Amino acid sequence: MRILGIDPGLAETGWGVVEEISGHIRPISFGIIKTDKEDALEKRIYTLGEDVATIARKYSIAAASIEDIYFARNITSAVPVAKVIGAITFKLMSMDIPICYYSPLEVKLAVTGTGTADKRQVQEMVRIHLGLEKIPKPDHAADALADCICFVTHNNRLTRGMK
Amino acid sequence: MRILGIDPGLAETGWGVVEEISGHIRPISFGIIKTDKEDALEKRIYTLGEDVATIARKYSIAAASIEDIYFARNITSAVPVAKVIGAITFKLMSMDIPICYYSPLEVKLAVTGTGTADKRQVQEMVRIHLGLEKIPKPDHAADALADCICFVTHNNRLTRGMK
Repeated sequence: MRILGIDPGLAETGWGVVEEISGHIRPISFGIIKTDKEDALEKRIYTLGEDVATIARKYSIAAASIEDIYFARNITSAVPVAKVIGAITFKLMSMDIPICYYSPLEVKLAVTGTGTADKRQVQEMVRIHLGLEKIPKPDHAADALADCICFVTHNNRLTRGMK
Repeated sequence: MRILGIDPGLAETGWGVVEEISGHIRPISFGIIKTDKEDALEKRIYTLGEDVATIARKYSIAAASIEDIYFARNITSAVPVAKVIGAITFKLMSMDIPICYYSPLEVKLAVTGTGTADKRQVQEMVRIHLGLEKIPKPDHAADALADCICFVTHNNRLTRGMK
């Protein structure tokens, strides 16, 4: 079962694909989608939705894990991210791909076991979870892989009836 | 030329279609799309995007006018609206329909000529602009028609080189 993790952003959306077999996960691919800030908002939103769809098709993903808005952030920065989430949600739904949303805190807890880990610690745990030699780069791609790990963790808990 | 106005919202999205001929406008149709609050977010977002697309096709619209987020509002209420805007934007872009976004203040100014008009005054001006006997109901549909008027006003200004 392949999971697509998404760390949404208007300028840069991180993505990661992992394969899960019986609770074990291995990385398949990861990267970022950039949009041109000279382009109109609607074009940037469309590009992000279409590029995510291309990745979803390429890796035959079974489900998507999208990192949701961090509500403590500024509304001016949150609104463009929310628009990107809406576009990606719409496109993935049109492809019949189930979506889970996780808050930044849920992702941090799932990956590190604590809500107080800093960015670097989260990235180091992503590296360990996925058996990688180095921390995945760029940051948004590492965050997207963390979203995948969060999905698998929650999914396993559900399977085991622990939640 | 037919314009689709959109007043986006997760529980209820208002829509209105007007026809513009040489700066004169007449109403074609208007209404609201409701979503079930028992449904998952992704399903509600998908429904809104698809229903807007159905309306866009039915009335052969040439452009869309979407009311953007009011930035003074609470982030908790703004984020779901932004997600809806993202989904509708993505779907209309996939149909090659040009989109303009207007702030609530721009809409008010275009419809009433003043930024201090209240909701009722805006609705009354919508009624007069469109030559309707009564104020369009429900409120979100009237707001969507106001978005159409704003689009036409700005469009005319552009045509006349006044902006």
